[in-house]
Amino acid sequence: MKLPLGYRFSSVYAGIRRAANGNPKDDVGLIVSGAPASAAAVFTQNRVQAAPVRLARRHLQVSRGVAGAILVNSGNANCATRTGDRVAIECCRALAKRLLLPVAQALPASTGVIGVELDAKLILKALPQLVDGLSEDKFDDVSRAIMTTDLVPKVAHAEAALHRGGVRVAGMTKGSGMIQPRMATTLGFVLTDARVSPAVLRGMLARVSERSYNRLSVDGDTSTNDTVILLANGASGVALDSKRDDLEALEAAVTSVMESLAQQIARDGEGATRLVTIHVTGAADDAAAARIARSIANSPLVKTAMAGADPNWGRIISSAGNAGVAFDPAKVDIDLQGSAVCRGGLAAPFSEAALKKKLEAPECEIRFAIRGKGKGAARFWTCDFTEGYIRINASYRT
Amino acid sequence: MKLPLGYRFSSVYAGIRRAANGNPKDDVGLIVSGAPASAAAVFTQNRVQAAPVRLARRHLQVSRGVAGAILVNSGNANCATRTGDRVAIECCRALAKRLLLPVAQALPASTGVIGVELDAKLILKALPQLVDGLSEDKFDDVSRAIMTTDLVPKVAHAEAALHRGGVRVAGMTKGSGMIQPRMATTLGFVLTDARVSPAVLRGMLARVSERSYNRLSVDGDTSTNDTVILLANGASGVALDSKRDDLEALEAAVTSVMESLAQQIARDGEGATRLVTIHVTGAADDAAAARIARSIANSPLVKTAMAGADPNWGRIISSAGNAGVAFDPAKVDIDLQGSAVCRGGLAAPFSEAALKKKLEAPECEIRFAIRGKGKGAARFWTCDFTEGYIRINASYRT
Repeated sequence: MKLPLGYRFSSVYAGIRRAANGNPKDDVGLIVSGAPASAAAVFTQNRVQAAPVRLARRHLQVSRGVAGAILVNSGNANCATRTGDRVAIECCRALAKRLLLPVAQALPASTGVIGVELDAKLILKALPQLVDGLSEDKFDDVSRAIMTTDLVPKVAHAEAALHRGGVRVAGMTKGSGMIQPRMATTLGFVLTDARVSPAVLRGMLARVSERSYNRLSVDGDTSTNDTVILLANGASGVALDSKRDDLEALEAAVTSVMESLAQQIARDGEGATRLVTIHVTGAADDAAAARIARSIANSPLVKTAMAGADPNWGRIISSAGNAGVAFDPAKVDIDLQGSAVCRGGLAAPFSEAALKKKLEAPECEIRFAIRGKGKGAARFWTCDFTEGYIRINASYRT
Repeated sequence: MKLPLGYRFSSVYAGIRRAANGNPKDDVGLIVSGAPASAAAVFTQNRVQAAPVRLARRHLQVSRGVAGAILVNSGNANCATRTGDRVAIECCRALAKRLLLPVAQALPASTGVIGVELDAKLILKALPQLVDGLSEDKFDDVSRAIMTTDLVPKVAHAEAALHRGGVRVAGMTKGSGMIQPRMATTLGFVLTDARVSPAVLRGMLARVSERSYNRLSVDGDTSTNDTVILLANGASGVALDSKRDDLEALEAAVTSVMESLAQQIARDGEGATRLVTIHVTGAADDAAAARIARSIANSPLVKTAMAGADPNWGRIISSAGNAGVAFDPAKVDIDLQGSAVCRGGLAAPFSEAALKKKLEAPECEIRFAIRGKGKGAARFWTCDFTEGYIRINASYRT
């Protein structure tokens, strides 16, 4: 699918992350909009926030929701360091100067290890090459430069037919561990060439985050650096018609991109062998349904059962019982891969062997339905929990 | 150390759990007090509660805090089953009849798989042998009969010198996974021969639970069957002097037993290779400190770092940031095994190799101190998170 108009991309290896096997992977990425773009962002709710999170938030306030560039590095979170704030602002200043942008229109983002000083010189030295390399067709290069323990790059595309013409949406994300975005996400950059005001864009990002990134958990840990930025540069020349369905059409395209990205993170969860989608219905409201879904998604016992293709619904109902949400266990129905395993809180008859085989698929579905009048529903993504997660995380830093 | 007076114990293999390698392990245990004992209990806060939890709670209400026997089985949680309530009451009735007790003085407890019918006949058939086998010296047999994935039985003893004479306290517990007791615990039975009223006993159990079992997490999952019962049968002939320090002396003995049991559970956490003790100080109050400690203890990234003997303090401060408690990251000091790794929210200089070596010990200590005037403190136990946990739980049931 074609990329949104008016954006250019670049990536380089600046030496921030160690070259594995003498094979350097790009660790700095740059996204530039030809014209200043409306910009909205959501950030981590962690009490400990990285310097680039704080600076990006400030820049969006100062610029009143306008941005021209996103500068991102992997290999170092620039968090809990002596020089963090200075490094973030120095890099933005140098970039803005080179791109002839107001500094507040440069948004920084970082991902990687916490508590290790990030050497600004590495990025400053790489800037000329980074800017010289800007090109319309390096979107995928940036999506690879932001990877940390990710096994695959994660991108998604969509189009929306608005009344005045077509617009495009493209997004990229990274993330594999320390993933439980809350009102925010890991790193994600979503671009559109539609013309949208910053205020409308902010509302859209808040709504779409809630049903995409905020319905995702790999390991229940919320990072210090979570950032999703949505840019709309208007390069398509197509503004939203004042009619409500134009907004809806664009929002649907953004939603499809962000849902795809969130799913891709769960699928690529550290050590994961399968994507697990949890559907909860019949709760008092959507928030209650989401709490139950999150509790199931974060249960190590449910996730290890999924790793073992074990239809252990007792762990599912027990983890739901820990969500802090009132429900009657005797009214719970649970289905795995479309097979009933629990009806009215009790075991349903099923073939253990046949269901185990179905659970060995790369995608698994848990349906948790509370009988009654409740209209609250939520969909949530997670992954199974394998020895691979342990191997990756018992040796990540040292 | 000697056991409290006036209790007898018994265990048998009733065929509830499959005999591994044709080697049956006892799966039903019985604790009987010669005289009716004051009884207090705390139970799981999970919304899904097993039949024996509901029945034990009712029995304590009906008996006004008096109990003569605890009947416990492993291998089946008697939870989320059609016949659960009937099985629990039938077994208690049969036991009470045989012991000539009011049925409300028989307290049931179960642990094991959820959602599988427990066959009452197995227990009823085993009762005669169980009761005939009662003996003062089979305390350890019962502690083994309640084990599930536990690798070792867990018992603890203490004595208290009261004004009118000495009394003894002994406790046993089980638990290795699905462990995050909240206002309750996994299974734990604590016995004393002191003479204490039910009301005083209830207050004591609530206070001691809060600083022992409620400061423990293996995997963040709270089970459907958590139950701790504290019995005081007065067989020592020693009543609490009305002076306050007798209560304190007994409470100290009960505390030492329950803290030891909680620690033993963390140490024997599924797949664990080391006990991790977390100390949080300087929070606004003890509850805030405990929330921070719990958040650190439940972070898979902290626990895998501990497995890898990796002094990754960035994960510790990040997980603390997710506790939902306000603190200034710039005022945080972190020590691992007595070595400073973070001062004022920033990396402290330390020898990576030397500290890694220290972290390979079977017991690790994390100190998280917030500078300032806050007096809130908490101690919390957990364990590291290894591939062994995954192996055990990806194949527990099937």
